[in-house]
Amino acid sequence: MKSPKSAYSAAIKTGKVEKHIMVIWVDNEAGVLARVVGLFSGRGYNIESLAVAEIDKKQKLSRITLVTSGSPEVISQIKKQLEKLVPVHKVADFMRNDPKIIFRDMALLKVISNEKKRSKAKKLCKKFDSVILDKSNKSIVIQVTALRRDIDKLVSDLKPLGLASVSRTGAVAMTRGAEIFK
Amino acid sequence: MKSPKSAYSAAIKTGKVEKHIMVIWVDNEAGVLARVVGLFSGRGYNIESLAVAEIDKKQKLSRITLVTSGSPEVISQIKKQLEKLVPVHKVADFMRNDPKIIFRDMALLKVISNEKKRSKAKKLCKKFDSVILDKSNKSIVIQVTALRRDIDKLVSDLKPLGLASVSRTGAVAMTRGAEIFK
Repeated sequence: MKSPKSAYSAAIKTGKVEKHIMVIWVDNEAGVLARVVGLFSGRGYNIESLAVAEIDKKQKLSRITLVTSGSPEVISQIKKQLEKLVPVHKVADFMRNDPKIIFRDMALLKVISNEKKRSKAKKLCKKFDSVILDKSNKSIVIQVTALRRDIDKLVSDLKPLGLASVSRTGAVAMTRGAEIFK
Repeated sequence: MKSPKSAYSAAIKTGKVEKHIMVIWVDNEAGVLARVVGLFSGRGYNIESLAVAEIDKKQKLSRITLVTSGSPEVISQIKKQLEKLVPVHKVADFMRNDPKIIFRDMALLKVISNEKKRSKAKKLCKKFDSVILDKSNKSIVIQVTALRRDIDKLVSDLKPLGLASVSRTGAVAMTRGAEIFK
């Protein structure tokens, strides 16, 4: 089917590109993640972060949280296509600034430096529920949990203090209150 | 090329299937994740968990941590193929019981129940560096960070206490001490 007004041209026209967080419940089976990810890469859409793990052993159910940027039109098109995939149970789509949703990233941060700098690093991490996971006479590994932008800032603040390695989970999301996705 | 002794038949012969954690540094570009994930799904290998996020804004570098199970032969074959992909910078492969590596999962847990059960739930979560992210008169959202098996156990213990929703990041990994992957 030829369509002169594709979602791509619509996105270009409106020019609105927004950050979206999508939560996708899927069967925990080989190939499902590839199909979900393929829907984005097939449109040239980058996945900024993605976290997936099994959340129900009995039902073999996994939950994917992914962050991407796109026009509302294309995002809603991708959502519809996701919902059509057989191993997909449900899909939720949020904007990053939705006050009803809790977003959270975890990072492991390794700092290699002298004691003074390491101690400064620990101080900077404190307000992000930091946990010291490992210590040597030259290094520390600190776990922090926070919003993505806070971790971005922290990472840049820790660089002059000897930040040597970073591992991040990407965002996960949960609605506030007693509401759950059905 | 015909090969009567493929990695698949070798895996079947030895029968050894082990859990592996792979850490992959890649360019943060559209399509890279699809190619990495495709290497696993193309062999019928399930990815149990995966976490990817950008770790270096300037270099546009993302770090993928994924957990899969497979024979040593096939895992080493996948590792070689990953290393050949252009946007892949380096690949590290660990066994889950490697004492030099710190593994860590984060989970958000929503419990909807009466006050007594919610308070029991909070107590169970305490040893996993729990943080209460949201409270209502019927529900709480608790963040925990721990090893995967600890979160598995916690999730099953929280079910009778009203666990209504779970979101997990999957494992991330970091070497102990001052060593970093080069």
